[in-house]
Amino acid sequence: MTTLYAGRDGKIRQITIPELFTLRNKPEYSDTIIWADLESPTEEEEETLLVNFFLFHHLAVEDCQRERLTPHIGDHYPKVEDYHDCLFVIFNPVDRPIEENENSNDESKYCVHFPTRQMNAFLGTNFLVTHHYEPSLAINYVQNLCLKNPQTLQRGPDFLFHIIIDEIVDNYTPVIEYFDKQLDELEACIFQDFEPSTLPKILSLKKGIIRLRKISTYQREILNRLSRGEFTLISTEEMLYYRNVYDHLVRISDLVESYRENIAGLLEAYLSVNSNRMNQVMKVLTVISTIFLPLTFISSIYGMNFRFMPELEWRYGYFIIWSIIIGIGAFMLRLFSKKGWLE
Amino acid sequence: MTTLYAGRDGKIRQITIPELFTLRNKPEYSDTIIWADLESPTEEEEETLLVNFFLFHHLAVEDCQRERLTPHIGDHYPKVEDYHDCLFVIFNPVDRPIEENENSNDESKYCVHFPTRQMNAFLGTNFLVTHHYEPSLAINYVQNLCLKNPQTLQRGPDFLFHIIIDEIVDNYTPVIEYFDKQLDELEACIFQDFEPSTLPKILSLKKGIIRLRKISTYQREILNRLSRGEFTLISTEEMLYYRNVYDHLVRISDLVESYRENIAGLLEAYLSVNSNRMNQVMKVLTVISTIFLPLTFISSIYGMNFRFMPELEWRYGYFIIWSIIIGIGAFMLRLFSKKGWLE
Amino acid sequence: MTTLYAGRDGKIRQITIPELFTLRNKPEYSDTIIWADLESPTEEEEETLLVNFFLFHHLAVEDCQRERLTPHIGDHYPKVEDYHDCLFVIFNPVDRPIEENENSNDESKYCVHFPTRQMNAFLGTNFLVTHHYEPSLAINYVQNLCLKNPQTLQRGPDFLFHIIIDEIVDNYTPVIEYFDKQLDELEACIFQDFEPSTLPKILSLKKGIIRLRKISTYQREILNRLSRGEFTLISTEEMLYYRNVYDHLVRISDLVESYRENIAGLLEAYLSVNSNRMNQVMKVLTVISTIFLPLTFISSIYGMNFRFMPELEWRYGYFIIWSIIIGIGAFMLRLFSKKGWLE
Amino acid sequence: MTTLYAGRDGKIRQITIPELFTLRNKPEYSDTIIWADLESPTEEEEETLLVNFFLFHHLAVEDCQRERLTPHIGDHYPKVEDYHDCLFVIFNPVDRPIEENENSNDESKYCVHFPTRQMNAFLGTNFLVTHHYEPSLAINYVQNLCLKNPQTLQRGPDFLFHIIIDEIVDNYTPVIEYFDKQLDELEACIFQDFEPSTLPKILSLKKGIIRLRKISTYQREILNRLSRGEFTLISTEEMLYYRNVYDHLVRISDLVESYRENIAGLLEAYLSVNSNRMNQVMKVLTVISTIFLPLTFISSIYGMNFRFMPELEWRYGYFIIWSIIIGIGAFMLRLFSKKGWLE
Amino acid sequence: MTTLYAGRDGKIRQITIPELFTLRNKPEYSDTIIWADLESPTEEEEETLLVNFFLFHHLAVEDCQRERLTPHIGDHYPKVEDYHDCLFVIFNPVDRPIEENENSNDESKYCVHFPTRQMNAFLGTNFLVTHHYEPSLAINYVQNLCLKNPQTLQRGPDFLFHIIIDEIVDNYTPVIEYFDKQLDELEACIFQDFEPSTLPKILSLKKGIIRLRKISTYQREILNRLSRGEFTLISTEEMLYYRNVYDHLVRISDLVESYRENIAGLLEAYLSVNSNRMNQVMKVLTVISTIFLPLTFISSIYGMNFRFMPELEWRYGYFIIWSIIIGIGAFMLRLFSKKGWLE
Repeated sequence: MTTLYAGRDGKIRQITIPELFTLRNKPEYSDTIIWADLESPTEEEEETLLVNFFLFHHLAVEDCQRERLTPHIGDHYPKVEDYHDCLFVIFNPVDRPIEENENSNDESKYCVHFPTRQMNAFLGTNFLVTHHYEPSLAINYVQNLCLKNPQTLQRGPDFLFHIIIDEIVDNYTPVIEYFDKQLDELEACIFQDFEPSTLPKILSLKKGIIRLRKISTYQREILNRLSRGEFTLISTEEMLYYRNVYDHLVRISDLVESYRENIAGLLEAYLSVNSNRMNQVMKVLTVISTIFLPLTFISSIYGMNFRFMPELEWRYGYFIIWSIIIGIGAFMLRLFSKKGWLE
Repeated sequence: MTTLYAGRDGKIRQITIPELFTLRNKPEYSDTIIWADLESPTEEEEETLLVNFFLFHHLAVEDCQRERLTPHIGDHYPKVEDYHDCLFVIFNPVDRPIEENENSNDESKYCVHFPTRQMNAFLGTNFLVTHHYEPSLAINYVQNLCLKNPQTLQRGPDFLFHIIIDEIVDNYTPVIEYFDKQLDELEACIFQDFEPSTLPKILSLKKGIIRLRKISTYQREILNRLSRGEFTLISTEEMLYYRNVYDHLVRISDLVESYRENIAGLLEAYLSVNSNRMNQVMKVLTVISTIFLPLTFISSIYGMNFRFMPELEWRYGYFIIWSIIIGIGAFMLRLFSKKGWLE
Repeated sequence: MTTLYAGRDGKIRQITIPELFTLRNKPEYSDTIIWADLESPTEEEEETLLVNFFLFHHLAVEDCQRERLTPHIGDHYPKVEDYHDCLFVIFNPVDRPIEENENSNDESKYCVHFPTRQMNAFLGTNFLVTHHYEPSLAINYVQNLCLKNPQTLQRGPDFLFHIIIDEIVDNYTPVIEYFDKQLDELEACIFQDFEPSTLPKILSLKKGIIRLRKISTYQREILNRLSRGEFTLISTEEMLYYRNVYDHLVRISDLVESYRENIAGLLEAYLSVNSNRMNQVMKVLTVISTIFLPLTFISSIYGMNFRFMPELEWRYGYFIIWSIIIGIGAFMLRLFSKKGWLE
Repeated sequence: MTTLYAGRDGKIRQITIPELFTLRNKPEYSDTIIWADLESPTEEEEETLLVNFFLFHHLAVEDCQRERLTPHIGDHYPKVEDYHDCLFVIFNPVDRPIEENENSNDESKYCVHFPTRQMNAFLGTNFLVTHHYEPSLAINYVQNLCLKNPQTLQRGPDFLFHIIIDEIVDNYTPVIEYFDKQLDELEACIFQDFEPSTLPKILSLKKGIIRLRKISTYQREILNRLSRGEFTLISTEEMLYYRNVYDHLVRISDLVESYRENIAGLLEAYLSVNSNRMNQVMKVLTVISTIFLPLTFISSIYGMNFRFMPELEWRYGYFIIWSIIIGIGAFMLRLFSKKGWLE
Repeated sequence: MTTLYAGRDGKIRQITIPELFTLRNKPEYSDTIIWADLESPTEEEEETLLVNFFLFHHLAVEDCQRERLTPHIGDHYPKVEDYHDCLFVIFNPVDRPIEENENSNDESKYCVHFPTRQMNAFLGTNFLVTHHYEPSLAINYVQNLCLKNPQTLQRGPDFLFHIIIDEIVDNYTPVIEYFDKQLDELEACIFQDFEPSTLPKILSLKKGIIRLRKISTYQREILNRLSRGEFTLISTEEMLYYRNVYDHLVRISDLVESYRENIAGLLEAYLSVNSNRMNQVMKVLTVISTIFLPLTFISSIYGMNFRFMPELEWRYGYFIIWSIIIGIGAFMLRLFSKKGWLE
C-alpha cells in the first residue's frame, strides 16, 4: 500500500501515482515537497516509483528489496549512501521480544528473540521516499502528525525524516524495558530461589543483549554520520536534531552495555551459587559419614562372635558403649559446628 | 529556587528576575557578569530565564529538563555543545553510595547504589547559567566563595565554572573512599573469616565500580575537550585550570580502574577459597571413610554366624583382631599425614 | 588448462596463445578486451603468459605460484597491489567444510576443516588475467555468462572482475549454513540429550569459526580498498558494485562474529550443564548415604552381643526399632524434599 | 635541604639562595647554568625559589606539593607541561618492594608493596630545578657526577635532566628482579610442593605487577613525548639520548607485560593443580568405598540370624566366603589399576 | 671474526681492515660497495670499524653491544633509526626451541625455550655493516651467495640487506613447525590418553607461543616501516622486496596467532576433560554406594538379636531376603543404566 503526500504553501494533500507523474511537469513541482511511503509495496509499485519516477540507482533499489530477495543472510546492517542527488539510508526498527517457548513446557529450548526490520529511505532536496515490507508504528505516527500539522512537511524532507528516525529510536524502549525486567527476574532466580534450569535463560538473554548492543551501535554510527555535517542534503540547522537522536542512541547503547555487564555478572553468580550449593551437599554427606561410620564400626565390633570377649560379659557393658557412642557423636557435632559445617 | 548574581567593578549583588530584564537595557550590561543558578526551578522560571531571556536553543533546554521529562532512560552522560554564542555543558556530580539493605536482613538483596545527578550549565561571554533539580554542595560552596570574595566573579564565567566543576570532582572522594573501605572489608571476609554469602556483595560492588569507572571516564573526556582549546569561550589562561581538574579526574579514573582490577581479583579469590574449602571437606570425608570402611569390614567378618570359624574359638582371637584394627588405623593415619591430608 | 577470450564490438571469441601474440601487433588490439583464465596452468603456460606476454613483476608471479612452491606456510592472506599498469589481487574462495572423521569411529579426532583456495587476478586497462590451481565454480559461472551475454566483457575488466568476486563471496554461503546447522545440533546435544563427548566437537567448531572470521575479515578489507576509489584502474561507476560486494561481506562477517559468540556461549553451557549433572550425582549419593548410614548404625547396635541388653528382651522391641527406622527415614526424605534434593 | 649549583666556563660551584638572587643581576647570568635541587624543602624554600625566583605558575607549584597536600588520592601519574619559558615534568621513581608480612605469621595478609615517589622537575633554557620530598638515589648519583666532571653541567639542563631520568629508570631494575624471583618461587610452590596457601601470594603479586605495568607505561609515554621533538627546550641532538631512555623503558614494559602473562598462567596452574589434587582425593575415596562396601555387604549377609541358612552349616562355608571376598577384592583392584586410578 | 667485502664493476673481493682505510682515499671508493660483517667481534674491532671508520653515533654502537653489556634486561626489541647518513636496524633471528628437561625426569620443570639473537645492521648509500655476537646461518648463506654471484653486491646495500632479512625470516620456520608438532602431541595427550601431567607442558607451550607472537609482531612492524617508503636509503624498487618479506611475516604472525587460539582451546579442553574424568569417578562411587548401602542395611536388620523377630523363624525367610536384595539391586542397576551412569 503506497501513500503519497504533496505539501505546498503549508498545506498537505494525498495524491495518487498518476497525479504524481502529472505534477512533475507543472511549474509548482519545484517547491512542492513529496513524501512517498511504500508499505509492503507490490513489485510493480516499486518499479514505477523507485525506478521509473525517482530514477534511483538499481543497487540501492536491490538493497531495499533484500528482505524479499535474500532473507537468509542475516540482518541488513544500517547504512547511508550519498548518491549526490539523494541520500539512501537503511535503518533498523526493532519489535517487542518474543519468548519462543511461551506456550511450551520444554525449558531447554527457551529462546528470546526480537525481530528487526529494514526501513529504507531516500532523501532528496524536495522528496522523501520511505520503503518497508512491514507496517511501521513510526511511519503511522508521523503520517498522523503531518495530517494534523501540515507545517511539518513544509520544514523539508530532512526534518520529516528526523521525526521518523526519532520515533523508531523511541520504539527501542519496550525492548530495553523487557531486558531490564528479565534481568531482575533472573537475579531473583539466582540469589533467592535458586533454580539450576536458569542457565539456558541466562545464555539466551545474553545472546539477545549482545544482539541489541550490536544493532544499537550500528544505528548510532549512522546517526553520528548524519549529524556531523557529512551530507549536504541535511541542512546545518537540522543537524542539531539528528544530534539529539544520536544522544538518545548513545544513552541506549550505554544502558545495553551495562546490561551486558550485568548478565555476565549473573552468569558468574549462577556458577558460584551452584558451586556453593554443591559444597553444601558435600558438607552434609561428610558430616553424616564422619559421624556414623565410626559409630557403626564400634557397634559392629561388639557384634563379633568371639568366644572370649570380656566386655560382653560386663553388666553395664551395653550402657558404657552407649555412653561412648553418644560422647563421640557429641564431640563430632561440636567440631563440625566450630568449622561452620552445620550451617 | 533561582538565585541571580550580577558582578561589576569587583562588587557582587543578588538581583531578581525583573531586575535582570531591566539591567539588559542599561549600558552597563555589557561589562556586568551574570551568574544565574536555577536550583529545582519551576517550569515557569525555566521558561522565563532559559527561553525568554537567554534565548537558548530549545534542544538544549529539553536536555536540561531530561531528568524531569524522561527519568527512565539511564543516566544522561555528560556533554559539551558549542552554540557559538554559548557553551552548553552537562556534568554529573555523584552522591554518597547508599547500601540498600542497610536495614533489612535479606543478604541476597545486597545492593550498592550511588545516585548521579545532572548539572547543566550555559557558559557565555558574560554570563553563567547553572541548572539542576537537586541541591548541589558544589554550587553552595561557590556561592559562599563569591559572596566572600567578589573578585571571583570578576575573573569571568569560565573561571567561575571551573571552580564549580573542581568542587564537583572533589565530591567524588567520598564515593572513592567508600569503595576503598568496602574492598578492604571484602578482602577480610574472603581471606580471614570466609563467608560464602560474600558473593552478592562482591558482584554488587563490582557493578558499582564499573559504573563509577564509566562516569569518571566520561567526565574526563569532557574536561579533556574543555582544556585543550577547542572552545573559544574558555580563554587560554583558564585552560590551565581546566587541565588541572582534568588531571584530578585522570587520577580518579586510575584509582577506579585499579579498584576494578582488585575486585576482579577478589572474585577469583572467592572462587578459589571456596574450592579450597570444598577440598578440605572432601579430605575429611575421604580420611574417615578410608579408615573406617575397612575396619568395619573386618569386624563384620567376625560377626558372621558360620558354624565352623576357627578364629572365633581362639583364646586371644578378640585381642588379635583389636591389634590388627589398631595397626591398620595407625598405618592409614600415617599415610594420610604424609600426603598432607590431615592439615 | 588456459582459456583466452577476446571481446570487441560486443562480440566474444575464444583464442589460442599464438593468436594472442599475433593480436598484439594489430591496430584493433587497443580496443579489444582480453580475459585470460589460467586454471591449473603448466609452468610453461605461466612463463609464456604472465612473464613473456603481460610482463608482470616477478614478485607478483611468485605470489601466484605460492600454493605450488611453499604450500606449508599457512593460507595466503588476500592482498591488492598496485603496479601502476595493472592491479594484482589475491582473493580466497572457500570450499564446503569436510568433517574429517565422517567414516571413522574415533570421536576424539573430530575435526571440521574447510579448504581455502588462492584466486590470483591481474587487472589492467584492457585485460583481466585470473590464475588458480583448482577448478573454480565462480570462474565457470562467469565464463558461461560471458558466452551467453558478450556485452558483459565489453563493460571492461573491472566490471568482469567484480562479477567473479561476487560469485566467490556467494559461495561462502554453504560454509555459513554448515556452521549454522552444526551450532543448532550442538545446542541440542547440550541442552536436550547431554553427551560429554560433545566437547571436542565444540572446540573444533570454534576453531573453524575463528578461521572463517579471519578469512572473511581479510576479504572485507580488500573489498573496502577496492571500493573506496584508491585505485584508478577501477572506474568510479564500478566502485558502487564493489561496494555492494563489500556490504555482502560485512553481513557475512557479522554473522560469523555472532556464531563466534554463540559457540563461546555453548562452551560455557557445556561446562555448566556438566557441572549440574555432577551436582545431581552428588545429591543422589548424599541422599542415599544420609538415609542409610544412620539406619545401618541403629540396626548394628542391636546386632551387638552384650549379655545384658534390656531392649532385646522386650516383646515388641523389634517392632519399635522398625518404627524408629521408618520414622527417621521418612523424616530425612521430607527434609531432602524440602531442600529440593529429590528432584 | 636545598642545593644549588652554578656552572660556567666548564667549572661548577655550589651557591646559596642569596647568592642566586645576586647572580641574577650580573651580566654573566645569561650564560650560567643553574641546577637547583630541592630535597624535602621547607615551605619557605619552596616559596622563595619556585615562586619568587623562578616565577613558576602556581598550578605547577601546587602539583609539586601534591604529595604533601593531598597524599590520599593515589599516585600522581607523570606528566609534561610546556609553560613556554620552562618545561614542567613529573616523573615517578620506584622503591624496592616491601613484603608487609615479613615478620608476621598471618599468611592471609601477605602483601607486596613497592612505593612510588614523585620527582618534579622544571627545565628551562639555562636552569634545571628538581624537587622531591624523599631522598633520591638518582639525584645523589648525578650530583657526584657533576662535581667530578663539571663539563656535565655545561652541556645544558636538558642533558643533565636526561642523566637523572636515566638513573631513575635504572633503579627500576631491583623491582623487576624482585618480581622475577617471586615468580620463580611461586612456580616451585605450585608445581613442586603444592601449597594451597599460595593463592594470596599469587593475587598480591599480580596486583603488584599490574601496578608496575601501569607505572612503566606512563613513564614510557612521557619519554616518548620528550624524545620526539615536541618540546623546543630539548635540543635535537639531546633527543637521541631521551630516545635511548625510552627504549630502555620499552624493554621494561615488555618484561613486565610478560610477567603479567606468567602470573595469569600461574593462577590458572594453581587452580588446575588444586583441582587435580581433589581428583586424587576423590579417587582414593572411590577406590576404598567401591572395594569395601560390597565386601561388608557380603559379610553382613552371613551375620543374619535366620534359623534356616544352609551355607552356615557347611563345613567350608567360612573359607568359601573368604575366597569370594578375596576374589572380588582382587578383581576390583585390577579394574582400578587398568583405569589408572591407583596412581 | 670480521669479514669485509668490496664490490665494484660486478666483481667482489675480500679485504682487510687496513685495506679498507687505504681504499677510502682512492677515487674508486665512491662507487665501491662495502659489506662489513662483524661476527662476535673483539672490542678493538668494534672500536676501529664502527667508531673510527664509519663514525656511527655512539648510542647506536652501544645498542649493538647491549647483548654484551646488559644481557639481563630482556630481549632487545627490533628497531629502525634514521641517522640521515645511515639507517640503523636491529632485527631478531630466532633459534630452534630447546626443551630444557630433555634429559631430566622431573616433569614439573618442563620448559620450552627458544633463544633470540640480536642482529644489528647499518645501511648506508654504499655500505652495509652487520654486527652480531653469535654465528648466523643467514649471514653465512648470503656470504656464499655473494661469492658465487658477485652481481648480488652490485645491486646495492639495500638489496643485500633484504636478502639477509629474508633468510632470517625463513629461519623462523623450524620454530613454527616445532610448535605445530607440539600442539598435535598435546591434543593427543588430552583427547586420547589423558595425562594429568600435561598441564605444565600446555602452560609452557603457551608462554613460548605468546613470546613468538610478540617477536614476530615486532619484526613485522619494522618491515612495514622499511617497505612503505619512509626511509630514502631504501630505493623505491627495492621496497617491493621488503614488502615481500613483510607479507611473509604477516603469514607467520597469523599462524602464530592461530596457535595461540589453539593452545587456549587446549587449556579449556584439558580442564573439561579433567572435570569429565572426575564426574566419571563420582558416578562409580555413587552407583556402588547407592546399591550397597541399602542392601547392607537390610542384612544388618536381620543380624539384630531381638528375642522376638518373626521373620527369623520362617522357613524360607533367608531366601525371601535374598530375593528382596537381588530385586533391589537389579532395580537400582536399571535406574542407573537409564540415567546413563553405567557408561
